[in-house]
Amino acid sequence: MSVVRRELEIAYKRVNPFIHRTPVMRSQSIDEMVGCNVFFKCENFQKTGSFKMRGATNAILNLSDERRQKGVITHSSGNFAQAISLAAKIQGVKAYIIMPNNASEIKKDAVKGYGGIITLSDADINSREQVTRTIQERTHANFLHPSNQLDVILGQSTATIEFMEQNPEMDFILTPVGGGGLIAGTALAAHHFNNNCKVIGGEPTQADDAYRSLKMGAIQKNKEANTIADGLRTHLGDVNFPIIKEHVLKIIRVDENEIVQAMKIIWNRLKIIVEPSSAVPLAALLKEKENFKGDQVGIILSGGNVDLGQLPF
Amino acid sequence: MSVVRRELEIAYKRVNPFIHRTPVMRSQSIDEMVGCNVFFKCENFQKTGSFKMRGATNAILNLSDERRQKGVITHSSGNFAQAISLAAKIQGVKAYIIMPNNASEIKKDAVKGYGGIITLSDADINSREQVTRTIQERTHANFLHPSNQLDVILGQSTATIEFMEQNPEMDFILTPVGGGGLIAGTALAAHHFNNNCKVIGGEPTQADDAYRSLKMGAIQKNKEANTIADGLRTHLGDVNFPIIKEHVLKIIRVDENEIVQAMKIIWNRLKIIVEPSSAVPLAALLKEKENFKGDQVGIILSGGNVDLGQLPF
Repeated sequence: MSVVRRELEIAYKRVNPFIHRTPVMRSQSIDEMVGCNVFFKCENFQKTGSFKMRGATNAILNLSDERRQKGVITHSSGNFAQAISLAAKIQGVKAYIIMPNNASEIKKDAVKGYGGIITLSDADINSREQVTRTIQERTHANFLHPSNQLDVILGQSTATIEFMEQNPEMDFILTPVGGGGLIAGTALAAHHFNNNCKVIGGEPTQADDAYRSLKMGAIQKNKEANTIADGLRTHLGDVNFPIIKEHVLKIIRVDENEIVQAMKIIWNRLKIIVEPSSAVPLAALLKEKENFKGDQVGIILSGGNVDLGQLPF
Repeated sequence: MSVVRRELEIAYKRVNPFIHRTPVMRSQSIDEMVGCNVFFKCENFQKTGSFKMRGATNAILNLSDERRQKGVITHSSGNFAQAISLAAKIQGVKAYIIMPNNASEIKKDAVKGYGGIITLSDADINSREQVTRTIQERTHANFLHPSNQLDVILGQSTATIEFMEQNPEMDFILTPVGGGGLIAGTALAAHHFNNNCKVIGGEPTQADDAYRSLKMGAIQKNKEANTIADGLRTHLGDVNFPIIKEHVLKIIRVDENEIVQAMKIIWNRLKIIVEPSSAVPLAALLKEKENFKGDQVGIILSGGNVDLGQLPF
């Protein structure tokens, strides 16, 4: 057994007691729409409403007892902040969360609700990093990166290990691509547990850094990232990019209206709430459905955290 | 074994191959909010997006071969129209649906999508009934009532038989009350399969005919029924009222803002889409939570058909 497969299995066993085994859902009408058999892995039902709970839990469990006592720290206004807060609370670890002062009250309340200790910074990345360093110097808390850290990536891969247990015959798995943690974890799991299953990313054309990075062979950034899929505005990192380069078949880009349409289809047909980022892989599948005729296609619905007052319908 | 229990078991076995076994969902944060253990039976995930598929299927399966050939007919602009259309299609039976000419395009498209044959009437009930009679005289189709017909009620009861299999220890089951078909079926199943489980209805104060009917001991109607819970604007009937009178513990009335709040809680916490009617039982539970401390409380989420362009958030 390869070292990577062993690491994946350790992560899977380690996070298992602390996360939900999320269901797989199907819709006959969606299958008819795309002409293949689609399986939706519902990480929107995961604790804190996103797959990030997996990576956060694995990273915290991976700390030594001594390091756990110092707590963990991250800067995020999104799903990773909530995931770190709850994962840390469950392990009895302090979580310091640096949030921009323009983050919505809903997001701040969610982090507080899960027990995160919030420090506000200015909205720019320099201020966030500066405030993070200041708190870190005082507390010696362990910095956790939402996507570019191996134990976080291994944690994200557990969604796919679980998914392949629930439905072993998938030809493809599609995930959204943001910072690259989910797709890197998915690609590792698919490769090491079932190397007939190909992994494809869906990415907003408005934030197509991963598409361009794969074309160029080097990490590209987004100048602007003006997409409704707010979880996907970030870019790849040096830890996940090599994995993506090696194991991801390709990236399909989709436009904003295609994302909203796919989101509407999921809401209407599956009767479940997913955030815009989660709709990107279905948008990608719809766009290139001719290439998937009759296949078994898994889609990871990455999260379900939306502000009901700000819906695109 | 009582005759009723036998009838319930027959209905359960009969509809089983043609409907979804819907999941039961939970939320720790909702449990904390109400101080009891809440189990949500997700009929929003049922075929056609509501429990009405059960009653429609049972009623159609109950027809003789000869009568099936004449088709079925109903007047409805809501979930029953969709349920009859698909249930009939699955059984190879024609479904004539009389819809008011002011019904939304979304609802007409849904019925057409499931194969229903639509005839439009004026919006008033006289016109609907007149058009129904005309089509019925021509086709000899079998009229099916959405709530006041025994085989429809027995079909609805199968949601509760299934629910009690999934979670046998419930102290209470709460359902919304509209025409009375769901709560009558629920009460029959709870009484005959587990007579320690009490059934309670949730009803909008704006359409509180069932509450008043139980008080008066005779069927009362709604003068106006100005509630967002559009599935609950109808009144009880002579078939279901005696069952409700005998087996339903009580009706709890809730205001419009309480319904919207409960709906928001379900959307945000369970990450699933339910229509306003489905939120009424949780609103009722929240209103009288002091009476349910530590109990196991089942809630039937009746449906998930909403127009995403018309949300109350």
